[in-house]
Amino acid sequence: MAGNTFGQIFRVTTWGESHGIAIGATIDGCPAGIPLTPADIQQDMERRRPGKGGATSPRQEPDKVEILSGIFEGLTTGTPLTLIIYNKDAHSKSYDHLKDIFRPGHGDFSYFCKYGIRDHRGGGRASARETAARVAAGAVARKLLQFEGIKVMAYTLALGGIMAENFQAEEIAENRLCCPDKAAAEKMEARIAEVRKEGDTLGGIVEIIATGCPAGLGEPVFNKLDADLAGALMSIGAVKGVEIGAGFAASLMKGSENNDALTPEGFSSNNCGGILAGISNGDAVVSRVAVKPIPSIGKPQKTVNLNNEPVEVMIGGRHDISAIPRIIPVCEAMVCLTLADHFLRQQACELIPDSGE
Amino acid sequence: MAGNTFGQIFRVTTWGESHGIAIGATIDGCPAGIPLTPADIQQDMERRRPGKGGATSPRQEPDKVEILSGIFEGLTTGTPLTLIIYNKDAHSKSYDHLKDIFRPGHGDFSYFCKYGIRDHRGGGRASARETAARVAAGAVARKLLQFEGIKVMAYTLALGGIMAENFQAEEIAENRLCCPDKAAAEKMEARIAEVRKEGDTLGGIVEIIATGCPAGLGEPVFNKLDADLAGALMSIGAVKGVEIGAGFAASLMKGSENNDALTPEGFSSNNCGGILAGISNGDAVVSRVAVKPIPSIGKPQKTVNLNNEPVEVMIGGRHDISAIPRIIPVCEAMVCLTLADHFLRQQACELIPDSGE
Amino acid sequence: MAGNTFGQIFRVTTWGESHGIAIGATIDGCPAGIPLTPADIQQDMERRRPGKGGATSPRQEPDKVEILSGIFEGLTTGTPLTLIIYNKDAHSKSYDHLKDIFRPGHGDFSYFCKYGIRDHRGGGRASARETAARVAAGAVARKLLQFEGIKVMAYTLALGGIMAENFQAEEIAENRLCCPDKAAAEKMEARIAEVRKEGDTLGGIVEIIATGCPAGLGEPVFNKLDADLAGALMSIGAVKGVEIGAGFAASLMKGSENNDALTPEGFSSNNCGGILAGISNGDAVVSRVAVKPIPSIGKPQKTVNLNNEPVEVMIGGRHDISAIPRIIPVCEAMVCLTLADHFLRQQACELIPDSGE
Amino acid sequence: MAGNTFGQIFRVTTWGESHGIAIGATIDGCPAGIPLTPADIQQDMERRRPGKGGATSPRQEPDKVEILSGIFEGLTTGTPLTLIIYNKDAHSKSYDHLKDIFRPGHGDFSYFCKYGIRDHRGGGRASARETAARVAAGAVARKLLQFEGIKVMAYTLALGGIMAENFQAEEIAENRLCCPDKAAAEKMEARIAEVRKEGDTLGGIVEIIATGCPAGLGEPVFNKLDADLAGALMSIGAVKGVEIGAGFAASLMKGSENNDALTPEGFSSNNCGGILAGISNGDAVVSRVAVKPIPSIGKPQKTVNLNNEPVEVMIGGRHDISAIPRIIPVCEAMVCLTLADHFLRQQACELIPDSGE
Repeated sequence: MAGNTFGQIFRVTTWGESHGIAIGATIDGCPAGIPLTPADIQQDMERRRPGKGGATSPRQEPDKVEILSGIFEGLTTGTPLTLIIYNKDAHSKSYDHLKDIFRPGHGDFSYFCKYGIRDHRGGGRASARETAARVAAGAVARKLLQFEGIKVMAYTLALGGIMAENFQAEEIAENRLCCPDKAAAEKMEARIAEVRKEGDTLGGIVEIIATGCPAGLGEPVFNKLDADLAGALMSIGAVKGVEIGAGFAASLMKGSENNDALTPEGFSSNNCGGILAGISNGDAVVSRVAVKPIPSIGKPQKTVNLNNEPVEVMIGGRHDISAIPRIIPVCEAMVCLTLADHFLRQQACELIPDSGE
Repeated sequence: MAGNTFGQIFRVTTWGESHGIAIGATIDGCPAGIPLTPADIQQDMERRRPGKGGATSPRQEPDKVEILSGIFEGLTTGTPLTLIIYNKDAHSKSYDHLKDIFRPGHGDFSYFCKYGIRDHRGGGRASARETAARVAAGAVARKLLQFEGIKVMAYTLALGGIMAENFQAEEIAENRLCCPDKAAAEKMEARIAEVRKEGDTLGGIVEIIATGCPAGLGEPVFNKLDADLAGALMSIGAVKGVEIGAGFAASLMKGSENNDALTPEGFSSNNCGGILAGISNGDAVVSRVAVKPIPSIGKPQKTVNLNNEPVEVMIGGRHDISAIPRIIPVCEAMVCLTLADHFLRQQACELIPDSGE
Repeated sequence: MAGNTFGQIFRVTTWGESHGIAIGATIDGCPAGIPLTPADIQQDMERRRPGKGGATSPRQEPDKVEILSGIFEGLTTGTPLTLIIYNKDAHSKSYDHLKDIFRPGHGDFSYFCKYGIRDHRGGGRASARETAARVAAGAVARKLLQFEGIKVMAYTLALGGIMAENFQAEEIAENRLCCPDKAAAEKMEARIAEVRKEGDTLGGIVEIIATGCPAGLGEPVFNKLDADLAGALMSIGAVKGVEIGAGFAASLMKGSENNDALTPEGFSSNNCGGILAGISNGDAVVSRVAVKPIPSIGKPQKTVNLNNEPVEVMIGGRHDISAIPRIIPVCEAMVCLTLADHFLRQQACELIPDSGE
Repeated sequence: MAGNTFGQIFRVTTWGESHGIAIGATIDGCPAGIPLTPADIQQDMERRRPGKGGATSPRQEPDKVEILSGIFEGLTTGTPLTLIIYNKDAHSKSYDHLKDIFRPGHGDFSYFCKYGIRDHRGGGRASARETAARVAAGAVARKLLQFEGIKVMAYTLALGGIMAENFQAEEIAENRLCCPDKAAAEKMEARIAEVRKEGDTLGGIVEIIATGCPAGLGEPVFNKLDADLAGALMSIGAVKGVEIGAGFAASLMKGSENNDALTPEGFSSNNCGGILAGISNGDAVVSRVAVKPIPSIGKPQKTVNLNNEPVEVMIGGRHDISAIPRIIPVCEAMVCLTLADHFLRQQACELIPDSGE
């Protein structure tokens, strides 16, 4: 059943396979009158683009986004926006030897179980390439949020077991791992270099912060803001855990430690991550995701083929060492999409002034 | 905007406030022909009931579930099931002194920001009492899953910083904290007793396991099974983090360590928590949640009133020391609801045999 | 699959069977801060109540609506409203002889085909009794619309082949058939008396007008206002046709006749029924429904039983001669629900003023 | 708010404007394993194509459909199908003089009221061109239905006041108006020729029949099969009325005339149009739509401009005399989409055999 649409009012449907003709996103429910150009979108695309850094895959995609509909004279019209990105550098041949094999850690086996058929070329729909469409759609959501002074940024908190220990906002744009701690970033690079030699891969942790969020976003009890953020972030392929605010650390605290006291100047701490009872409280909305290591490693692995016979597979192809940093704009996109949707949801039900009748 | 419905096909809408006349759940989309009695539901209700143990609140609710519709001669009819639980032991008076005050760690402030109005009696809709309706609905989902041999169970993995270190399934029913490690359960109890004296509260970690799940459940790319589980679990008030399989630990592993090898006998490990690329792989589906400490503590706290003036508040009332163990059936309910919905979603799109035309 | 919910933002779920314990409606997505009392709802209920007039069935239901949730100190809170109506005067025994028989014109056969099970008592969920829950929910939608000066009214345009030929608004409340033409109403009554003697039943046409509707409601291209109105009205059991504005008569006109000219003072005619390209144009929104004759007649009918054997059935029981006038508040309710939902949908996507960042 | 998606399980989102780069449809929820080629789709496209007959507009669009995603080796994969049709022959210049004018009978005024902005070129999103995307998506639904032996066909029942009085199925493909009555078709052609000279346009009635439908489709009480068909058909721009079975004629019948008797061999009549209580009964599903005359006429018309000043407008451009016959495949498409969705919805909730636990 249909699972490729995200959001209730600001609705995004992504489509397309890694090695198909194109991937894309259709956004239905974007308000009219928002200035939007392909350049607005391209900015975020660049940060997700393959081949951007040493840790990243050499597949060279220009990832040029075209807007096929929903724009007139530079403004959104309120009708569906369709964004398309053509696949240019797909080397489907490199996947021929994987046609009958289930790669460990990938969706090959589960897709086959579900659909009885699978597009084996580059992971098909399960490929991280699908996230390019998310980033494109997220850029439109970001424009909407900017109208209201809401900003979303993400950065690397940990990679390969190395934690950022300082937070310097300006540092994030300075190193290609988008880590707010320069020294940690250097250690992470060293770790990447080391693991690359082994033909292995690394995971890490990304933190996402939204500032400028008004209080009141989120729809209890099932579409709480944290619930929808968790769903949104966990829908990213490499993510295996999500935290809001103190997250798992809250499980170790006492109530007196974890509660954020209210003062006339605002909350005195932010263990709740800007969300109380599922509704934003006006503070920064803070979430974190656990990113698993890339499953495509440069080492022989045990698996089975379509006949359930044991085989050894050597993946090869062009792969990143870590989903970080390319996953960072994807995380931002999912948070932008969630917030844009909740912003409009909240607007839908605002109290209507009595007409006096 | 409407946020009180969970699921796409097996749809549950909960309603009711902590101190209103009743709370309830309406289930639309339950297949016809499933045997269902109030007793089937009551079983799960008992495990969530207030006043069940030393760690729990003394509010005495019988939590008797009545089935108002959707049943005929002991079978579901395919029409909506409405389950109702009357509130019997609500002491609204005890909340009078909180009318103009925002309790730290509760939804008081954010609800007020969102709706401009709030039912202050016992947290209104934001109360944990709402979860009784989830448990009732979850019990119906559980019946559906049992038809297919799918079982969902949860237990305490940590409480107040004390981790279970052994897993003995039979132990779970033996101690009131539902902890699979007897020795750990005893330490947890000691910790509870200690913290109770301080007037403080504790958090912990609950693990939920679903066994017997067929491969193929989950709808990429936004309604992946893990995404929907994360959203479902994070929608529980006390939950601040969700993990699938290895979760945050996966962020520390190398790809070669984290990948689950396939063998002719099945997967050789389960770091992915039974979900690959968002689709169940036939293995046990494993999730974990971080439970924050109960915000209602027996100590004076700093906060503000409706006029944004600083005040000190002493909560009082009848409260648990920890959301564990009462949150356990709630976690199970949310996993049952998610799996039941995905089971039907998968059934919707199964390949239709060609009629030969 | 779930089909008992209406609306996208103002969402109503109805539940309950004709001869079950109760029927009801849960409304999720009603904005907070609307004054609402049971009396507001009761007013509309009275107009739908059985036993109100000579044409109507003698089942005596008080149809007292209780509000179980979502109200605090007389105002809606933004949380789900649950409305409940207990069934008091169900005579299930009168249906015992129909247990194994499919009544012609009723849902008995199709329900059995779909669910493999059926609550035969009074039609179960397929009973017109379900519409009481619609009327209750519609009354809440009406309150919301009144805030904005939108009014919805319906009346009898035809009954048993007799058409109203004059329109006098004040006459509608004067005769029990709610017909704006006094002379026609009298002829209709005579026709009813005649057909009652034959043991037969009658159909007719109801027109529904919404005034005060702002321009801009409706969501092209699938949730156009006329599309959603058509779906809403056709979901009423007895309705077999829906028209907007000139409706079928438009199929006979030339473009030059059918087009409504715009003038500085507004549209010079309203063949479009207040809806252009699926969006309200500020004029009165006009729809009409064809109501089939009540299928429960007082004559022997040919049908089959569960074994597909031919039998003759004599329905008996307590039935109306025509669904008119009791269907009138149901038609109004469906239009109110559609407009309330679209009002909020439109509000969701209104242009957000640029914050100047 | 998002209104461009149709269906709950077989979900179609259309996008694109009349004079934009392209229009298209994304289908999410199509089962895997269905053979599908562009040729399957092209067949239906040809029947809707501009310039197909004397009654039709001379805009020359090849309407070649490309499948951008969701297909692998000739089979659907269960992932979203995106169909794209490039706009080739848009003459936007011809609309320059209409930029500041609201055309009578078109969506110009209401779109402007809703969005505060409008793409005036050829009606933008409100253009009948949008229906090309519906036909493309409908062709995929038709493939799915064919698997199950369900067939959907439509034909002209009336045009310009001339009714078909005979039904000869084989005649439908013989005349370009798709009328089952040859003599009537000839009269209709004469009427078209006459009205063309006047610079005027005509409406009519289309009937749609689905055969081979299993009993059990439809989801009471709001997503009844007839309710969803009515919404689907009324969402077509030119449609102002919808009937099921006897439709408005049922309002003139007595119950004893309208009821369809059941016999061991099936229903003895089909006044209900194959739908009882909103659920298909196994008979032919019959619906009819009233098609208004094309609003773009070749005569001067009174209207207002953006400043609400009275002006006279002469539309010009390339327009059809009647939406019939080109609307016929559009009607079929909407019925196919509705049935495909309900087929899968029904499949979702079929009784699950007890696993014996």
